[in-house]
Amino acid sequence: MGYQAFTSSIDALVMGRKTFETVLGFEIEWPYTVPVFVWTSQLREIPTSLEGKVQLISGNAVNLVQQLKNAGLNTLYIDGGKTIQSFLEEDLIDEMTLTTIPVLLGSGIPLFTPSNKSIPFMCKASQHYANGVTQSTYKRKDR
Amino acid sequence: MGYQAFTSSIDALVMGRKTFETVLGFEIEWPYTVPVFVWTSQLREIPTSLEGKVQLISGNAVNLVQQLKNAGLNTLYIDGGKTIQSFLEEDLIDEMTLTTIPVLLGSGIPLFTPSNKSIPFMCKASQHYANGVTQSTYKRKDR
Repeated sequence: MGYQAFTSSIDALVMGRKTFETVLGFEIEWPYTVPVFVWTSQLREIPTSLEGKVQLISGNAVNLVQQLKNAGLNTLYIDGGKTIQSFLEEDLIDEMTLTTIPVLLGSGIPLFTPSNKSIPFMCKASQHYANGVTQSTYKRKDR
Repeated sequence: MGYQAFTSSIDALVMGRKTFETVLGFEIEWPYTVPVFVWTSQLREIPTSLEGKVQLISGNAVNLVQQLKNAGLNTLYIDGGKTIQSFLEEDLIDEMTLTTIPVLLGSGIPLFTPSNKSIPFMCKASQHYANGVTQSTYKRKDR
């Protein structure tokens, strides 16, 4: 569903601790080819097997983006529920890909949390797949 | 955006009191050509100008659908936030058209309320418009 093509266009991946630990828990080979930054104030070290592939990073989201930009990493893929929410809250998201599995779950963790800002996007592309899933790409308006 | 084509395929419209009062508040000519049923336990009468066009209906959603079916009204368009939620809660929705205006509002009334059921849908069609809006049609799975 376009994930391969997408990841080839990014400079680095930023994920939260929980997502990182979830990926580790899969016990598969490390799946990322781009540098991964784990955004955490809690973790102190990473498994030695991931040295050179994963770095820990902390501080606020705005500084984090600036820090990576200074290192030449401009196109960032932001992953993980809370991490995405923090980046949205700071209006740091230029583009979102939403893949909708159309099941009304009834409960769970919402993707978008309450905020006192409203942020306009534009739908750039939308398609649906034979398995009933929809994927839409939204671009931040006026950017 | 396909609304005209859509309404020509329905037998009747069911809306809640709030939606009904909102439409009345527009002070435009009555916009519906199909019979409208206002689902309310509160309203007792309708404006005389709408007699023959609007009927009040009460009772639970399952009975309401049965009642209209008995009257030969099979394809119902369900309108209004709370009304839609009640119908979803009873798994009475066969098809949903979701039009997404891609603005993260930050707050407001959610379309889907907490429930203890999960209900599977399939995406039947999805398109995006030049104005940045997406419209997707979801069909209840296994129906």
